[in-house]
Order: sequence, then structure tokens, then C-alpha cells
Amino acid sequence: MGNKKEQEFVKEITPMEEDFSQWYTDVILKTDMVDYAPVKGCMVIKPYGYGVWEGIQRVADKRFKETGHKNAYFPLLIPESFLKKEADHFEGFAPEVLWVTHGGNEELAEKLFIRPTSETIICTMYSKWVQSYRDLPVLINQWANVVRWEKTIRPFLRTAEFLWQEGHTVHATEEEAQEETLKMLEVYRQVAEDELAMPVILGQKSEKEKFAGANKTYTMEAMMHDGKALQAGTSHNLGQNFAKMFDIQFLDKDGVRKYAWSTSWGISTRLIGGIIMVHGDNRGLKMPPRVAPIQVVVLPIAFHKEGVLDKAMEIKNELAKNFRVELDDRDTYSSGWKFNYWEMKGVPLRLEIGPKDIELGQVTAVRRDTLEKFTLPMEGLTEKVGEILDDIHQTMFNTALKNREQKTYTTTDYEEIKKIMKENPGFVKTMWCGSRECEDKLKEETGATIRCMPFEQEHLGDTCPFCGKKAEHMIYIAKAY
Amino acid sequence: MGNKKEQEFVKEITPMEEDFSQWYTDVILKTDMVDYAPVKGCMVIKPYGYGVWEGIQRVADKRFKETGHKNAYFPLLIPESFLKKEADHFEGFAPEVLWVTHGGNEELAEKLFIRPTSETIICTMYSKWVQSYRDLPVLINQWANVVRWEKTIRPFLRTAEFLWQEGHTVHATEEEAQEETLKMLEVYRQVAEDELAMPVILGQKSEKEKFAGANKTYTMEAMMHDGKALQAGTSHNLGQNFAKMFDIQFLDKDGVRKYAWSTSWGISTRLIGGIIMVHGDNRGLKMPPRVAPIQVVVLPIAFHKEGVLDKAMEIKNELAKNFRVELDDRDTYSSGWKFNYWEMKGVPLRLEIGPKDIELGQVTAVRRDTLEKFTLPMEGLTEKVGEILDDIHQTMFNTALKNREQKTYTTTDYEEIKKIMKENPGFVKTMWCGSRECEDKLKEETGATIRCMPFEQEHLGDTCPFCGKKAEHMIYIAKAY
Ligand SMILES: [Zn+2]
Ligand SMILES: [Zn+2]
Repeated sequence: MGNKKEQEFVKEITPMEEDFSQWYTDVILKTDMVDYAPVKGCMVIKPYGYGVWEGIQRVADKRFKETGHKNAYFPLLIPESFLKKEADHFEGFAPEVLWVTHGGNEELAEKLFIRPTSETIICTMYSKWVQSYRDLPVLINQWANVVRWEKTIRPFLRTAEFLWQEGHTVHATEEEAQEETLKMLEVYRQVAEDELAMPVILGQKSEKEKFAGANKTYTMEAMMHDGKALQAGTSHNLGQNFAKMFDIQFLDKDGVRKYAWSTSWGISTRLIGGIIMVHGDNRGLKMPPRVAPIQVVVLPIAFHKEGVLDKAMEIKNELAKNFRVELDDRDTYSSGWKFNYWEMKGVPLRLEIGPKDIELGQVTAVRRDTLEKFTLPMEGLTEKVGEILDDIHQTMFNTALKNREQKTYTTTDYEEIKKIMKENPGFVKTMWCGSRECEDKLKEETGATIRCMPFEQEHLGDTCPFCGKKAEHMIYIAKAY
Repeated sequence: MGNKKEQEFVKEITPMEEDFSQWYTDVILKTDMVDYAPVKGCMVIKPYGYGVWEGIQRVADKRFKETGHKNAYFPLLIPESFLKKEADHFEGFAPEVLWVTHGGNEELAEKLFIRPTSETIICTMYSKWVQSYRDLPVLINQWANVVRWEKTIRPFLRTAEFLWQEGHTVHATEEEAQEETLKMLEVYRQVAEDELAMPVILGQKSEKEKFAGANKTYTMEAMMHDGKALQAGTSHNLGQNFAKMFDIQFLDKDGVRKYAWSTSWGISTRLIGGIIMVHGDNRGLKMPPRVAPIQVVVLPIAFHKEGVLDKAMEIKNELAKNFRVELDDRDTYSSGWKFNYWEMKGVPLRLEIGPKDIELGQVTAVRRDTLEKFTLPMEGLTEKVGEILDDIHQTMFNTALKNREQKTYTTTDYEEIKKIMKENPGFVKTMWCGSRECEDKLKEETGATIRCMPFEQEHLGDTCPFCGKKAEHMIYIAKAY
């Protein structure tokens, strides 16, 4: 392989500094993560992209079950009348739902909408299932597809149909519902930080930004390479709003019938977009090892030489007992082409095995995160690979945290906020009086929104930079996906 | 617990000899497998039912991956024009698809239908992805929800929306496509027999019964307690039909552009209905251990006595390392009530721990399949439980096979076939000339259909029992779900 060929191959991806949006599109298409579907607003998740979703499902589902939740499945289609029961919820979702009007050639008696989220159908069932305090808490999660009609599309980030999980719980008291809401946000933080190596800011959404029908919405927010924020997961305390509208009542220990308290929480295929934009570079993807569809790729070098392919296969089979491993034994591509290919795919660790390696009882290893090249003894390889993957996870997390810190500014000067959002966007930590007017003004004049009132409040000043009145909250603002 | 209470509890389920259909409904509702949804034709799969589906997904997905398949995800909604491309397919599915006509308040430019199966959208993508022989084979599977408009409902067996997997593969040659079609039927057989303990007959569907758009459909058929057959999984050789209609062409090694060959195959939540009707009895469910949501339930007896609850918890935690275990420490129910409850739920193995058991260093075990009661030493319990669960699997399979054999008749006398179907339905092994006329006549006069032409052909006679002409195939006929 000539150096020329390598450059040509890498050049297929537009540098992110040049055009971040084109970089994203190049990366997702060229790595076979996704394809555009011939249906407006829809995407096809190809095996390599879906493999990441399977990884996210695996690490999230495990934690949902450890915290006492069980999975169930509710209908895709919901009668029109259900949507109208909760007024805020209706207002929030009616403009973007898809309507089913006919079955075969027959017009339906009542129109059905495709779930954009499932509170209405799930609360209807809960109202039947919950009768006594003995039936509480209800701790149920659903893995499902939902549809919110969108005309523009950014794969993983904004599509009409997407995959997600939605937890829906019911509790006897306000305190328990609040505890659940925060517990699941913490589970999401663990998924993001401990599995996807994606640092997040935790906090509460403003009234304007909260979920349609919730009392309080909590969020985790991540910082992308282009300085825009991504809402990576949300957890809602729904108070008694849905319980009252859908009549979820229970006979309490004291013999009194009471309305229950409910929560809902969700993460989606959006997280895959986050992984790409938090970790990727101009060579392509960088997969966080714990959800990477392929953690280790084994490349036989000069594999027409006797014994090379056998040894590569042996190592692959040994590692496959503990890791997701692929052997690339295609003879239609050069080694150099393969190096670039697997780097672009973002496989965390590449192991090369050639005649010299076999002679020395070693493999040559290359880390995707640092591109560092080194040798490893074949003996004890499994243990060593495990350690390296852990280290790659930690290094990727640290790098992402450093990137976020470099893109986080602290100021209470509105002119400076405007300048930052225009020239060099990122998170701005600042103060806020709490008014909707200031929130709207910020959006209109800078394009940025309040991402959250973080749990870790700091006192940065006494006045709101937008109106000069008394500041009530420290906030993170940013442009967002 | 009095014996009276036990009987009352058990009496909640209608005996299957009295009314099989009511027995089924009682079992699925009282064991919290499922609930009816307030949407015509739809069901809610409750956690205990969904747990079985998770089990089926686990054992099937593992085999799909071992045979080289990867998962992906394609859109739920498909433009109207796609359905019209394959004429047989259109004719088969158009009457039962649901139509989406509006997004928000806006009428859509082209109507969309909700996938009843995904050949049309998946083949459209494949036509783009497949260009060269190097791109073949394509081995993709999708876990998804599909909708076929039904007005009547039998949970798990016939519902408008159901969950399934659909494999869609593309191959360079007819031979490879045929090999894949049969390989996946064999995978399904393994899932049914080796995991669900459900014996199946393998064979080919008649022209009338094959999938709309297929060249050949293969099936696995199981026998239910009421003598009706269940089509438990199908695998289709689609020939070049879809490749031609959706233009899936590739440049072959010889430099010639050729149409590809494709297959599709699916199993669904129907299998859960099969598990219920193959294994259940008048006490309720009998869960096959390998997909049971709960494999072992641990019951502390007299657990106000010191040490009992601690010991039960200890055993539960120890077993939980290898099995799906639940500890029932509810103090609001008697032990007798719990025995019946967990028998009804069909948990394969119940372990009771009381003061006497602790004293003797043992647990008391009860098998759901045989209701046999015996003691096990606490030492080496994990290994022993594993052996018992394997034995329960085997015993359940043998029992189901015996039931099937008892309900399988062999005759070439049409009058006898009529009598069997009327009085004591089951499988009838007989001969067939191959004509559609005889197939229609059979259906009309007996309500039975040709389930398949089994791979294991036997020569039972020279003439077709329905018309007297030359017999071409040995067939299994039955009434079916
Ligand atoms: Zn203000
Ligand atoms: Zn005939």
C-alpha cells in the first residue's frame, strides 16, 4: 500500500473544522452506520449502527433491571380521544403525530395516532391495574419505536421514527416519585459516563423546556465537538397530572382512595449521534469500548505466509470468549487499506499478527484513541486486552471532559455571551432571574437555550445578565441539537 | 392454608376439557401474561409475558448471530407505491394494512402504510447496497413490531400488532438461497425443540398456503392440547421475485450483471401462545425452563422464625448467579396461597426453606412439570438445580411429544378424516394428489388445512383420499390457529 492510497482513503471524510455537518454525514454514511430511507424523515439503521444500539440496550437494560424495573410492551396505535385527555400533553404532541385513518379499504370509526410517546396508553392501563397500595410501585419500562413527524432529518439526532426506551412508573407518594425520577437520571448518567465515556451535566429543565405534562423535567446534557449541546436523556416527575387525567387511584393503607404519582424517563438512538460527535475525529469514528459493536479487530499481516492465518484465527477465537472480536481475513484489500478502514470504523483496539510477531511470540497493537503502537506478549493476551480496553474507556472520557471544559465559559456579561455564541459556541455558565421573557430573549438574540439549572449550583453574580433583575438560578446555556 | 382455599384458587381457571378457549383466556389473564388494550385488535404484553419474549429473543438472537446474521432496523412506514411493486405480495397484504394519511393537520403527499412485513422497504435498500458479488451474501435480521389489521383478537395468536423478527437475506445463487432457507428453518426447530421444549413437524407449505410472493415456504408446525395445529415459524425462498421487482442486481465474478436470490424468515410472539397451549394444564402455565422469566422461586416457610428469611435470601442470591430466581417474601399471603400462585405462573422449580429444612441442611423442592416433591442438600445446590432444570426441559419435551403422537392419526380414508376432524381433532397423516381443488374441498368440508408436506415423507397409499387420483405427496392436515 502506498501512502498516497492511504491519504485518498482518509480524505473521503470532510475535516470537521471545515464543515462539521458534512463531517458528520460523511462519517455516518462511510462507516455504514446508517442510510437515508426513501421515506421522508426516516433512516435505516445499518448493522454497524444497530450494533451500538444493542450495546446501549445491554448496558441500560441491565441497570433498569437492577433497580427493580421490568419490561413490557404497549400498543403502537392509540385512539384519538386519549391524546386529548391531558391538555398540555395534547398541545405539545398533536402537531407532530401521524394519523391512521384507514384499515384496508375501510375507514376507521375512530382515528388512531402512532405513539410519539406512550403516557396516554400506558396510564390508561395503569388506571386498571392500580387499585390498592399493594399494587404500588409499578416499575415498567418499554423498548419501542416512536414517531414524531419531522420533515428535516439528521440521522440519529432528528428523525421521524426513532428507537428508544420509555420508563413509566407509579408511586404512592410524591417523595417516592421524586426519588425515582432522580434515581433514573443517575442511571442515565452511569450509562453515559461509565459506558459511553460521555461526560454529562445533570440538572433541571426550565418551565419552558420541560416535557409536555410534567411537573419537573431533569436532563443530562453533553457537549459536542462543534460546541453544540446534546440533550442525551431526560427524566420527568409527572406529579399527579396524568394520574388525575387518566384516573390512577389506589386505596391506601389508611383506607383512603388517593391519586397516585407518576414518572417517565427516556433515552434514545440519539445517544449514538452523541457518541459520534463527542468522540469522533477526522479519521472517523472512535467507539467507546463498552458499547463498541467490535472491540478488537485482528489483522493477519502477510497472511499468505504459512501459519499466519491459523495464528490469527486462534487469537481471534481465544479473545472472542471475552470480547466482541472480528478477524479481517479479506484478501481483496491491502493491510494499509484495512488499517484505515478499521480506524474509520472506530474499533478501539487493532491487533496485527505477522510472521515476525509469531516468531517473537507477540502481537502488534494499535489503540484507536491515541493511535499509539506497541507490542503485547501472546501469553496473557486476554487479560492485557481487558486492561487496555478499560484504559481506552478512561482516556476517551478524560479527553471528552477536557474538550468540554475548553468549550465551557463562565460569564454574566450578556455582550460576551452573544460574542461566544456567535464566534466560538459552547456551554456558558451564567445566572438567570427565572423569567420566561429573558429565556425567550436569549433564544431570539443568540440562538442559544437554557440547557439546565445544574444540580451543582454556583453563585456567579447577583443579577440576571438579560434583564438586570435579581438572579435566582445558575444555568448552563448553549446552542443545541 | 385450608384445602378449601386451595381449591377455590385453582378453580379460577376453567378446565381445558370443558372449554379450551376459556381455559386459554383464564390462564393468560390470571397469570398476568397479557391484557386487552383499549385499541381494537391490540394487546398489552405485561412483564410476565414479555419476559418470555425476552427469553425467546435471547435464544434465537444468539443462533442468528452464530449463523452469521446481524441485526439492523428499517422504517415502520412505507410509501404506498412500494406495496404495488410485487403483485402477489400486494394482493396478499393490501386488504390488511393500515394507512397513514395525515401528519399533524397536514395531508401527506403520498399515503404511507404500516409494515405488515418488510420485504418492500428492505428490498428497496438492498437494491442500493448490493452492487457486486463482494457485497453478497447480505445476512440481516430485524426485531420489530408489525401490524396486520384484525378485528378479532386472541392474544399472542392473532392480534393486529405483534412483535417478531424478520430475517432478510440476499445471495448470489439459487442454491445458496435454498440452503439459507432450510438453515433458518433448522434454527427455528432448535429454538422450538431445544429451548421451548415444543416438538415440531418440519415441511413445505402448499402453493395455496405459501407466503405471498415466495417460491417456496417451509414451516414448523406444533400440536396444541386441543388438537389444533400452530404454525410456529416459517422460512421463505423468495427466488428472484423480489430481486426482479426491486432491482437487486449484482456484477458477478464473471463480469455479468445478474439478479440476486433472496429469502425471508420469521418467528413471532405467537410462540408464546404455543408455549401456553403445548405445555399448560388445569393448574395454569408450565414454563419451559430455558425461556422461563423465573426459573426458580424461593419460598421461606414460617418465616417469622429466626434465620429463615436470611437463609432464603442467601440461597436466592447464590442461585441468582446462574439462574433467574425470585424470592417470594410477601407476608400478606399464606404459603398455601403462594404454592398455587407459583404453580399457576408455571415456574419450573419451587424451593421451600423452613426451620426444619435449615436444621437438616436441605431445601424442599417441587417440580412444576411432575408436581413431584423431594429434598435437596443445600451443599452443591446450584449444580443440582441446573440438572433438574435440564431434566424438566427434557420431560416437558417428551410429554409434549407423547401428546402429539396421541393426537396424530394415519389414514387415507376421507370419511375417517372427516370423523376425526369433527370428533377428536389432531394431525392426520394422509396422501394428496397436489391439486388446489382437493385442498379447497378439504377446508370447506372439514375445516382442516394442509399444514405441510413433511420432509419425512412416508408412502401411505397410492391414491388421493379426496379425489381418487394418483397421490403425489404425504401431508399433515389439521385444524389450525
Ligand atoms: Zn432576567
Ligand atoms: Zn386429489
